Amino acid sequence: MTLKKQIAIIGGDARYLELIKKLISNPNYQIQLIGYEQLDQGFLGVQYTDLDEVSPETLDVVILPITGVENDGQVKSIFSNQPIILPNDWFEGIKNNTIVFSGITTSYLEENLSNREVTFIPMMERDDVAIYNSVPTAEGAILLALQHMKTTLHDSNVVVLGLGRVGLTVADKFTKLGANVSVGVRKAGDIAKASALGYNGFHLSELTAYTKKCNLLINTIPVLMLDKAELNTFTADALIIDLASKPGGVDFDYAKKRGLNTIHALGLPAKVAPKTAGEILANVIDQLITDHQ
Amino acid sequence: MTLKKQIAIIGGDARYLELIKKLISNPNYQIQLIGYEQLDQGFLGVQYTDLDEVSPETLDVVILPITGVENDGQVKSIFSNQPIILPNDWFEGIKNNTIVFSGITTSYLEENLSNREVTFIPMMERDDVAIYNSVPTAEGAILLALQHMKTTLHDSNVVVLGLGRVGLTVADKFTKLGANVSVGVRKAGDIAKASALGYNGFHLSELTAYTKKCNLLINTIPVLMLDKAELNTFTADALIIDLASKPGGVDFDYAKKRGLNTIHALGLPAKVAPKTAGEILANVIDQLITDHQ
Repeated sequence: MTLKKQIAIIGGDARYLELIKKLISNPNYQIQLIGYEQLDQGFLGVQYTDLDEVSPETLDVVILPITGVENDGQVKSIFSNQPIILPNDWFEGIKNNTIVFSGITTSYLEENLSNREVTFIPMMERDDVAIYNSVPTAEGAILLALQHMKTTLHDSNVVVLGLGRVGLTVADKFTKLGANVSVGVRKAGDIAKASALGYNGFHLSELTAYTKKCNLLINTIPVLMLDKAELNTFTADALIIDLASKPGGVDFDYAKKRGLNTIHALGLPAKVAPKTAGEILANVIDQLITDHQ
Repeated sequence: MTLKKQIAIIGGDARYLELIKKLISNPNYQIQLIGYEQLDQGFLGVQYTDLDEVSPETLDVVILPITGVENDGQVKSIFSNQPIILPNDWFEGIKNNTIVFSGITTSYLEENLSNREVTFIPMMERDDVAIYNSVPTAEGAILLALQHMKTTLHDSNVVVLGLGRVGLTVADKFTKLGANVSVGVRKAGDIAKASALGYNGFHLSELTAYTKKCNLLINTIPVLMLDKAELNTFTADALIIDLASKPGGVDFDYAKKRGLNTIHALGLPAKVAPKTAGEILANVIDQLITDHQ
């Protein structure tokens, strides 16, 4: 008989409900939930508990929220109104070979884990997670475009900036919906790639030639792309959706002054498709625990 | 020199702004607007007037609202708070060979126009308009699905009922967004057509085999399709969007009792893409006036 893996899920958001549901279905896992006392619908087969009741050295897997752990040790849970604090000595208590998952890394986590022989996995930095998440992100961009535009996406002129993991899926989806998609990139290889995939690839130095006639621009590059000069070229009814992480790629203050409709859309997977976003994390976590010696 | 066509636009909704904008750009048209006194932004080159000021016999073209004319002669305008009434003798006043446009026909319009040598065009009954409108309708269905589902459309199981003008475009768009689309129809030829287009075509008598595992059902057939027996087979988190005109194809009372999420979505083009919906009408009207002797 193999011993069950001891898993503690500490804090979380709507995505974690799907994650918990998936992990429960694995009979090799024994799951403890910390920070879930306000959950409307309980899960069967898990243990609801407090941090004090859990001995860190008994755990094989620790799953922290997407936001990680803040500098005072605080962990966020939308299912609890009690503060959850993971002090330094809590991390000292976990045994070697434990796997610690979080969404992003934070300086507090770095500090507590970098000298330890634990496997630390900030999931959002993984290539597979980013690619899977590009689908709900692109669907979120479609949702925003449909809500804010007065024309159909079909036959509209859409400019996508960047052809990374998100840009690629966004360009694909909007093309399939009948939009005329142009993709602005910097590398000659990426212009060729855009062209090979059926988009109109152009160099970012020519951006203003495309912004003039575009109905919708979607930025995925986390660098200031749309400054005053570029923003002045848009027509009044154009929509700008910025998917790049903070501070984004748009001079939002100036865009507002010009009356342009701009949206800095962050964390779309959790908002648009929390169930799918949870499944993505669950599949990756499940696989990594299984692979782990 | 050819005389300008005298066009009266009497009442209307948000779509008519785009319609007016398009028609103004044709130098052969002289346009009078009735029921537009509350418009925020005025149009140049048109005459804002009252019904009393317009002699019906001078008109070459009369454009009525999508809703037509009600039984008391009333015409709806969202840009006016004055009642607009077209009495029977107003219709008697219009000359032969006039073109009268409306969205739908009404018994009052039938009564006043059926014995006349005028060309009456209820635009929404035209095949081309219905096909063009199927695009904003399908995009509206995408918007509703993205708003109400917790999963991505990508990889979801979507059942479309009907493969007419709307069903065809809906099945196409959802397939392109990565959904697994099954299409329920009655004719053997339509099952073959669905299959040829890459969907999973099935006969409507097998409907409950598909409703069980579907995440989203979109009905386009204006007949009761989802009665108690069918509604009992859906899972609790399924979404049902009914695009069929009133009373629709769903027993909404029973669906509500079962706690199913159902939406009877009517008039989506005007809601989701009023500009495109106006352009569709403008293009058809412009073409028909030009073709008319």
